[in-house]
Amino acid sequence: MTQSVIPVNLPQNAYEIALASDSLDRLGSWIKSLNLGRKLMLVSNPTVFGYYGKRAVASLETAGFEVHHHLFPDGEEYKTLDAVSQLYDAALEVGLERNSTFIALGGGVVGDMTGFAAATWLRGINFIQVPTTLLAMVDASIGGKTGVNHPQGKNLIGAFYQPSLVLIDPIVLGTLPEREFRAGIAEVIKYGVIWDADLFRQLEAAKRLASPSDISNQLLHEILMRSCQAKAEVVSQDEKEAGLRAILNYGHTIGHAVESLTGYTELLHGEGVAIGMIAASRLALALNLWSAEEDARQAQVIGNAGLPTTIPPGVDIDAILAKLQTDKKVKDGQVRFVLPTSIGHAIVSDRVPPDLIHETLASLQKETVQT
Amino acid sequence: MTQSVIPVNLPQNAYEIALASDSLDRLGSWIKSLNLGRKLMLVSNPTVFGYYGKRAVASLETAGFEVHHHLFPDGEEYKTLDAVSQLYDAALEVGLERNSTFIALGGGVVGDMTGFAAATWLRGINFIQVPTTLLAMVDASIGGKTGVNHPQGKNLIGAFYQPSLVLIDPIVLGTLPEREFRAGIAEVIKYGVIWDADLFRQLEAAKRLASPSDISNQLLHEILMRSCQAKAEVVSQDEKEAGLRAILNYGHTIGHAVESLTGYTELLHGEGVAIGMIAASRLALALNLWSAEEDARQAQVIGNAGLPTTIPPGVDIDAILAKLQTDKKVKDGQVRFVLPTSIGHAIVSDRVPPDLIHETLASLQKETVQT
Ligand SMILES: NC(=O)c1ccc[n+]([C@@H]2O[C@H](COP(=O)([O-])OP(=O)(O)OC[C@H]3O[C@@H](n4cnc5c(N)ncnc54)[C@H](O)[C@@H]3O)[C@@H](O)[C@H]2O)c1
Ligand SMILES: NC(=O)c1ccc[n+]([C@@H]2O[C@H](COP(=O)([O-])OP(=O)(O)OC[C@H]3O[C@@H](n4cnc5c(N)ncnc54)[C@H](O)[C@@H]3O)[C@@H](O)[C@H]2O)c1
Ligand SMILES: [Zn+2]
Ligand SMILES: [Zn+2]
Repeated sequence: MTQSVIPVNLPQNAYEIALASDSLDRLGSWIKSLNLGRKLMLVSNPTVFGYYGKRAVASLETAGFEVHHHLFPDGEEYKTLDAVSQLYDAALEVGLERNSTFIALGGGVVGDMTGFAAATWLRGINFIQVPTTLLAMVDASIGGKTGVNHPQGKNLIGAFYQPSLVLIDPIVLGTLPEREFRAGIAEVIKYGVIWDADLFRQLEAAKRLASPSDISNQLLHEILMRSCQAKAEVVSQDEKEAGLRAILNYGHTIGHAVESLTGYTELLHGEGVAIGMIAASRLALALNLWSAEEDARQAQVIGNAGLPTTIPPGVDIDAILAKLQTDKKVKDGQVRFVLPTSIGHAIVSDRVPPDLIHETLASLQKETVQT
Repeated sequence: MTQSVIPVNLPQNAYEIALASDSLDRLGSWIKSLNLGRKLMLVSNPTVFGYYGKRAVASLETAGFEVHHHLFPDGEEYKTLDAVSQLYDAALEVGLERNSTFIALGGGVVGDMTGFAAATWLRGINFIQVPTTLLAMVDASIGGKTGVNHPQGKNLIGAFYQPSLVLIDPIVLGTLPEREFRAGIAEVIKYGVIWDADLFRQLEAAKRLASPSDISNQLLHEILMRSCQAKAEVVSQDEKEAGLRAILNYGHTIGHAVESLTGYTELLHGEGVAIGMIAASRLALALNLWSAEEDARQAQVIGNAGLPTTIPPGVDIDAILAKLQTDKKVKDGQVRFVLPTSIGHAIVSDRVPPDLIHETLASLQKETVQT
C-alpha cells in the first residue's frame, strides 16, 4: 500500500496531509493519534454522506469517539452564513466543547463551511478535512481559507483557519462525476506549470487525463502527492497571502471573469481556470516570457484532460475586460496576471498592455467559431 | 497633557494602546500613522454616536480618510450574528477592501461585534478599537476576543482577532451612566488583586470610587494605564487562553453564575464580578491562602466603589452550585477557581471542596438579610 505524509510547515500551525488508499477506514485511528477531545461532529452533505458516511462513522466509533453528524444541503447555493448558523445550533445541541472537533467530509463547499464554523465556534475548535473531490484534495483543503458566500459575492465572509489533519483517500474519487474530476485536474495542471515541472511531465506522459479510469493508481497517487506538496510549499511560505501565494491564481484572473459572466452555471471553476491558463499562456508568449512550444505543450495537456480551451461563444470580450477591472486582484487600475516563464515557473505582472489582453481574448474566441 | 502608550507585545500581532485626554480629536492622525487604506467604516450605536460620532468623523475626515458609518441598535440583546450580517451588507455597499478598516466606537458590545466583522470580512481586514465604557477600555478592547451571542449562550460564536490600535479618551467617561462606570471599576479592582499591588493601593487610597467625579484626572489616567498594562501583559503571555490568562477570570466563576441566574438583567457583569471576588476571597481565606486582613481590604475597596458585596436574596445557592457545573471552566467535573494568595497575586485551583463553596455562598447571602 502506498502511503504518503506531506507536512504543511506553517510557522504556528504545522500539520500533516495523510494520503493513502482506503485511509477513510483508518480515519478514527489517525485522529486518535492527535490527542483531541472525545466528541466529534462529522459534517457532510447527503450525496457524500450517502456514499461514505457509514464507513467514516464506523471508523470513528471503533476508535472510541462520540460521533455526531450534520448534513448541509448539497450545492454551492447553500454555502451561506445561514447554513453555518444551523451547524452552530447542532454544535450547541450536542454540546461541542473547546477540545471537540469538526470533521468536513466532502468537497470544497462542505470544507469551506465546516472550516469557518470550526474557526468561529467557541472562538475556534479542532478541525479536520477529509476532502472527497479532486479539487478539494489538491486545493481547497490546504491553505486555511475557510468561509461562505455573501448573496452578492463569493467567499466574502471567512477566516484563515488551519486544520489539524487533512486525510485523503483517493478511492473516493471513484464515485465523483467525471466532469468534477476534470475540473480538479485543471488545478493539478496549474501546479505543474507554475511550480513542479516533473509533475507536468508526468501529466504529459499520461496522454489521457479525463477520468480516474484513464490514470493508474500509481499516477493518481503521484498527482495528489505532488499537487498537495506544491500548495503546501507555497502557502507555508506565505500563509496570509501577502506575496508568493498570488501565483496560485494562475489561470484564475480570466478564469474568474469568464465563470462569473456565464453566471457560475455553464462552467465549473476548473473549466474557467483551464480557459484562463490558455489565455495567460498566450499573453506570456506575446510578451516573450515563454516559447510557442511551451504554450503548445500546456494546451495539449489541457486538451488531454477534456477541459475547454476556448472562450464560450456567448461571452463578450469587452465584458471580460470590464470584469477584470472589478477583480480583487486589481491594484491601482492595473490588472495583475500570473504568467508562466517556463514549465515549473511563473511570475506576477501588472504590466500586461490592455490591447494585448483584448487581442488575446478575441483570438481565443474566434477559434471556437472555426471548430 | 498626560499621554501614555502601552505596548501589547503579541508575538505575531504587536500593537499599541494610546491613552490621552481628548485623543478622540486625534483619532484621524493616529490612524494615518499606521499606513492603512483610505476607506474606513466607523461602527457605533445611536447613544454613543450621538455623543461622539461627529468628533470622530471630523477627525477622520480631516486626516483625509473616506469615512462611512454603521450603527447597531444599542443593547446586549442585539449582539447577534444577524446584526453582524447587516454590517457585512454595509461593508459591501460602500466597497470595503482588504486594506480598509473597521473602527469600533462604543462599549464592549460594539467592540466585540465590530471585531468579529473585521475578523471575518474578506477573511480579515484592519480593526481599530475606540472603547467608550470603562469596561471596554480596561478589558473588552484588549486581548483579541471578538464575537456575538448565540440565542442559547453568550459569546459562543467568535474569533481571536487583534486590533491595529486601541485609542482611549478618558473624557468620554463623563457621559457614561455611573452604574456602568462602577461595573468597570470592578474589573480594575480585579487587576489590583491578581496582578498589580500598586494599583490596588492607589484604589485603596482614593476612598470613594463610585463615579468619575470621585476621582482625579491623574488617578483616572493611572487606573486606565495600569489596568491596560495588566491585561496586555497577561494576554501577551497567553494569547489563545492556554494557561495564565485564566487568572483574568478572578471573580468570574461565581460572578457568571449569579449573573445568569438573575437573567442577565438584575446585575451588570461587573456587579456579578464584584460578588464573585468577595466569594473567591472568602474561599481563599478559608483555605488559608490569604489573610483576613487582605479579605477585608478587598471588601472595603469594593464597597467604596458602590459595588454589591452580597448575593441577591432571590438567588438559590444550590442553583449557583448547579450552574458552576455547566461552566466552560469546569474540567473533569472540578470547578476551577481563581484564588488570591496576596494582594497582586492569584492562582488557579480546581481543588476547592464543594462543601466549602456551599458554606461560603450561604454566608454571603445571610448577610443580606441582616442588613
Ligand atoms: N478554501 C480554498 O482554498 C478553496 C480553494 C478552491 C475552491 N474553494 C471552494 O470550493 C468549492 C468548490 O469545491 P468542489 O469543487 O469540491 O465542489 P463541491 O463541494 O460542490 O463538490 C462538487 C459535487 O461533488 C459531490 N461530491 C463530492 N465528493 C464526491 C464523491 N467522492 N463522490 C460523489 N460525489 C461527490 C458534491 O456533493 C457536489 O455535488 C467552492 O465553494 C470554492 O469557493 C475553496
Ligand atoms: N472581548 C472581551 O474580551 C470582553 C471582555 C469583557 C466583556 N466583553 C463584552 O462586553 C460587553 C459589555 O460591554 P460594556 O459593559 O461596555 O456594555 P455596552 O457596550 O452595552 O455599553 C453599556 C451602555 O453604555 C452606553 N455607552 C457606552 N459608552 C458610553 C459613553 N461614553 N457615554 C454614554 N453612554 C455610553 C452604551 O450605549 C450601552 O448602553 C458584553 O457583551 C461582554 O460580553 C468582552
Ligand atoms: Zn482554483
Ligand atoms: Zn469581566
